[in-house]
Amino acid sequence: MSARDIQALTFDVFGTVVDWRGSIIRAGEALGRELGRETDWPGLADAWRALYQPAMAKVRERSRPWTRLDDLHRENLIAILPRFGLSDLDQAAIERLNRAWHALDPWPDAVAGLTRLKRRFILSTLSNGDVAIQVRIARHGGLPWDFAFGAELAQSFKPDPKVYRKAAQLLGLRPEQCLMVAAHPADLDAARTQGFGTAYVHRPLEYGAARARPMPQTDFDYAVESFTELADRLGC
Amino acid sequence: MSARDIQALTFDVFGTVVDWRGSIIRAGEALGRELGRETDWPGLADAWRALYQPAMAKVRERSRPWTRLDDLHRENLIAILPRFGLSDLDQAAIERLNRAWHALDPWPDAVAGLTRLKRRFILSTLSNGDVAIQVRIARHGGLPWDFAFGAELAQSFKPDPKVYRKAAQLLGLRPEQCLMVAAHPADLDAARTQGFGTAYVHRPLEYGAARARPMPQTDFDYAVESFTELADRLGC
Repeated sequence: MSARDIQALTFDVFGTVVDWRGSIIRAGEALGRELGRETDWPGLADAWRALYQPAMAKVRERSRPWTRLDDLHRENLIAILPRFGLSDLDQAAIERLNRAWHALDPWPDAVAGLTRLKRRFILSTLSNGDVAIQVRIARHGGLPWDFAFGAELAQSFKPDPKVYRKAAQLLGLRPEQCLMVAAHPADLDAARTQGFGTAYVHRPLEYGAARARPMPQTDFDYAVESFTELADRLGC
Repeated sequence: MSARDIQALTFDVFGTVVDWRGSIIRAGEALGRELGRETDWPGLADAWRALYQPAMAKVRERSRPWTRLDDLHRENLIAILPRFGLSDLDQAAIERLNRAWHALDPWPDAVAGLTRLKRRFILSTLSNGDVAIQVRIARHGGLPWDFAFGAELAQSFKPDPKVYRKAAQLLGLRPEQCLMVAAHPADLDAARTQGFGTAYVHRPLEYGAARARPMPQTDFDYAVESFTELADRLGC
């Protein structure tokens, strides 16, 4: 794959661009301090995220109608609160916690890398998060997207092929002109099946330092440790 | 209407943010010089634009299936070429002229005004142009959109009410939280019917200096001469 053929970079967001786990833990801790409530916030973040794929799978498989990720997040949160001794949390607190997904902090290299990559390439999110979530994450972190693509624009969730195809189509490009950037091999595999180029970004801290793993062997077009390294590799 | 209720500004683009007519004329003149062809480029720009509303009306009224603006532009261009002595223009030249709509120059106050407005408000296009066109215009002119909304996301064209409603919905907002910004009263009227606030921006040069008119009397929530004046009025 030659960088000269690529016109757009499309990014997974949760885990690839932003540190969802650290951000959710910090939001939970801040709420806990205010309300005088203690719980295992890292455990809550992990339990919340564990319901993410199963909830999307039901929509993808059409066993439930289209539902925005924001609403799936809220349902999943309510489902796990009893396990963390928080079943009496009021509506406002639930809404505030759910909104933590709108204000996730970027990984330290993200803004610098994207700023360099934007000089040469169209930059788009290609996320299972809704457009409204992407727009707010970008404003929170200063992410310079050209387009905030959310899976709702394809009315399905990754890795459904039509999500990738819809993103390329809206950008006015063939899949071969797009490079999918993600920290998750399954996402890259699905994008590759649709013709996208692939760039694996290693995010060892996504699930916390205790679960950090070294860079794996992959067969993707690029494999890098940061967005700034990706900018180096793509000559930006 | 209080600026404190507004969360997002949604912008018409052609004529409101960018000088489509001047840009098309300049692109035509540049092409003409290269090919050694002369014609009435201002007349061609006006004739091209004159077919814009009728072409969209057919889609809006469902007398033809959904068609992207980029394709309508191309059809309309081909239709008028004979009138300007250019019926022998080749495919590459036609494509290049059509792509001039992807590289329209912003009005002089646009970037400065948007940059100030973005500090406080979500900024989105709300244009009949496709997403791919909006993304390229923004990159060309340095327009700092949070979201590039194109009418294709609603599969219709303004002033169809569903286009405005879809934009607000994707931004995660009620129409009352959105302020439509446009140089065209009919666009603002349609947005207002859906609950949007309205800001009229006077663009006297849209159809050329010879057809400039003074600021009209309007009953919109705001009426300004520039985006920087709008930023002043909204306290940005």
